[in-house]
Amino acid sequence: MPDSTTARAAPAARPLMPTGVGYADGDYVPVEQLSVSVLDYGFTRSDVTYDVVHVWDGRFFRLEHHLDRFLKSMAALRMAIPHDRDAIRAILMECVRRTGLREAYVAMVCTRGRPPPGVRDLRQCRNRFMAYALPFVWIASPEKQRSGLSAVIATRPRIPPQSVDPTVKNYHWLDMDRALFEAYDAGADTVILPSLEGTVTEGPGFNAFAVIGDVVVTPDSGVLEGITRQTVIDLCRRKGIAIEVRPVTLAEFRDADEIFIASTAGGVMPVTRLDGRILGNGAPGAVTSRIRDLYWAWHRDAADTTPIAYED
Amino acid sequence: MPDSTTARAAPAARPLMPTGVGYADGDYVPVEQLSVSVLDYGFTRSDVTYDVVHVWDGRFFRLEHHLDRFLKSMAALRMAIPHDRDAIRAILMECVRRTGLREAYVAMVCTRGRPPPGVRDLRQCRNRFMAYALPFVWIASPEKQRSGLSAVIATRPRIPPQSVDPTVKNYHWLDMDRALFEAYDAGADTVILPSLEGTVTEGPGFNAFAVIGDVVVTPDSGVLEGITRQTVIDLCRRKGIAIEVRPVTLAEFRDADEIFIASTAGGVMPVTRLDGRILGNGAPGAVTSRIRDLYWAWHRDAADTTPIAYED
Repeated sequence: MPDSTTARAAPAARPLMPTGVGYADGDYVPVEQLSVSVLDYGFTRSDVTYDVVHVWDGRFFRLEHHLDRFLKSMAALRMAIPHDRDAIRAILMECVRRTGLREAYVAMVCTRGRPPPGVRDLRQCRNRFMAYALPFVWIASPEKQRSGLSAVIATRPRIPPQSVDPTVKNYHWLDMDRALFEAYDAGADTVILPSLEGTVTEGPGFNAFAVIGDVVVTPDSGVLEGITRQTVIDLCRRKGIAIEVRPVTLAEFRDADEIFIASTAGGVMPVTRLDGRILGNGAPGAVTSRIRDLYWAWHRDAADTTPIAYED
Repeated sequence: MPDSTTARAAPAARPLMPTGVGYADGDYVPVEQLSVSVLDYGFTRSDVTYDVVHVWDGRFFRLEHHLDRFLKSMAALRMAIPHDRDAIRAILMECVRRTGLREAYVAMVCTRGRPPPGVRDLRQCRNRFMAYALPFVWIASPEKQRSGLSAVIATRPRIPPQSVDPTVKNYHWLDMDRALFEAYDAGADTVILPSLEGTVTEGPGFNAFAVIGDVVVTPDSGVLEGITRQTVIDLCRRKGIAIEVRPVTLAEFRDADEIFIASTAGGVMPVTRLDGRILGNGAPGAVTSRIRDLYWAWHRDAADTTPIAYED
């Protein structure tokens, strides 16, 4: 970063890489070049954790929440890297800075790594940190968000938390991808997976919410504790909107007045069709729309945002 | 491959790469260079299938069984690649040939690939095929196999088949890796995971068997349908050893006379200590040893082996 206290000439400006920047092993590269060895257990065992934070209007949103979760996930998997929290924050910042993007999708990843040749001991692996910044990713385009998404409830249950703890953010998504094909086959945009017990869990990249009467409900367990989910919960509490975090049955979900999904990749997004049933009048509901507006308004709150130090 | 019908001079011999050879996109490279983009859904969603076949004494063992399963797995995940079965076989052969290895671990992998930038539709991804050959991998060293392995039964249940079909060979192993840390903490070599229902499933890279009286038993569902598992079943049937493929409770497994595990990465391997209990006299049991001998003897059966066309 430029240091105004020194007399050094500013470095020549590098060309920006707006299609994405990756970081690994001390180097910043075009994101196209950022890759994982096919022998890394992060690939061959999906023994990896990650987090994604977004940049909106030149500022990270709730970056410290994402760093908290990422460090907690690494600890749960007994992973250790040579970068501390401040170093990770600086790398993420530098990835975004080099893209020049004002709106970005920013990932931090830690893989188990590889053991020495011929050895399979996880304790002998060198854990590997990577990061990258991409143009902002929308689960549903702004146009689609105006009309609302169509979703189905999958027949395939989400991997249960006893097997893979969803609060440790992970890439175990084969259940979700196979459920997505169920959605495609039904002509829907996306899918929400049930638990083995017949309650609502989550979908590919998002948490699910229902509005039942005046109350917003969202599942309490068996799901990623999404930062956008937490933001919705926080803003409901601040604004006096009733919110319940509890098991949500498929039956009450199907009968809900409104449904929306929440993700770092797109924020609060209305679902207006579920298993072919049109919710409300087929347009985003009033409570959903209010929460969506509050969510984006929160991005102007300096207390929860971190400005990127772009080069001028 | 050399073609004896042409008059061309033989190409100059390339140096062999005994540490491993990888294949992707038409190129053969040192395996160290074979990698997956961090943006490939094969990494970020573990939306990938694979298979592993081994080469012993210069011959693939049951290669056609592995090709059958790999093609079936790809079809289940609705993946398609430009290589047919014969082309895949030829690529695997060429990977091994370029290593010069007489004993090798040979993997074929198909990832979902990447969608176009900004899109998340699985149907728009270009599925990506890769392959590699490495020096033979042992889950347990030959020395360890003589004494027998120590194992524990994990507290963490295996991902259930309703969520992720284990017969589609996959990299959803975070449950197994976390269970491995349970084994390490208990001073054991490896781990076997229960099902949610309290029956035996499998462990990291292997199927599990018990010998109860004169009968060999192995779980019928919730597990990978391993080729080595099938080989054990086949040879028991051929040799008149009683074999039952059925649910195996944890209680009967813990009380078994002998336990062994089976994997392409090492064959038939005895477990002589389970949750601290010493089985038999602490040495590999008679039935396990007989099956292990039969398994390796089968590698001399030309009907189930495919010779590698090494350069002389």
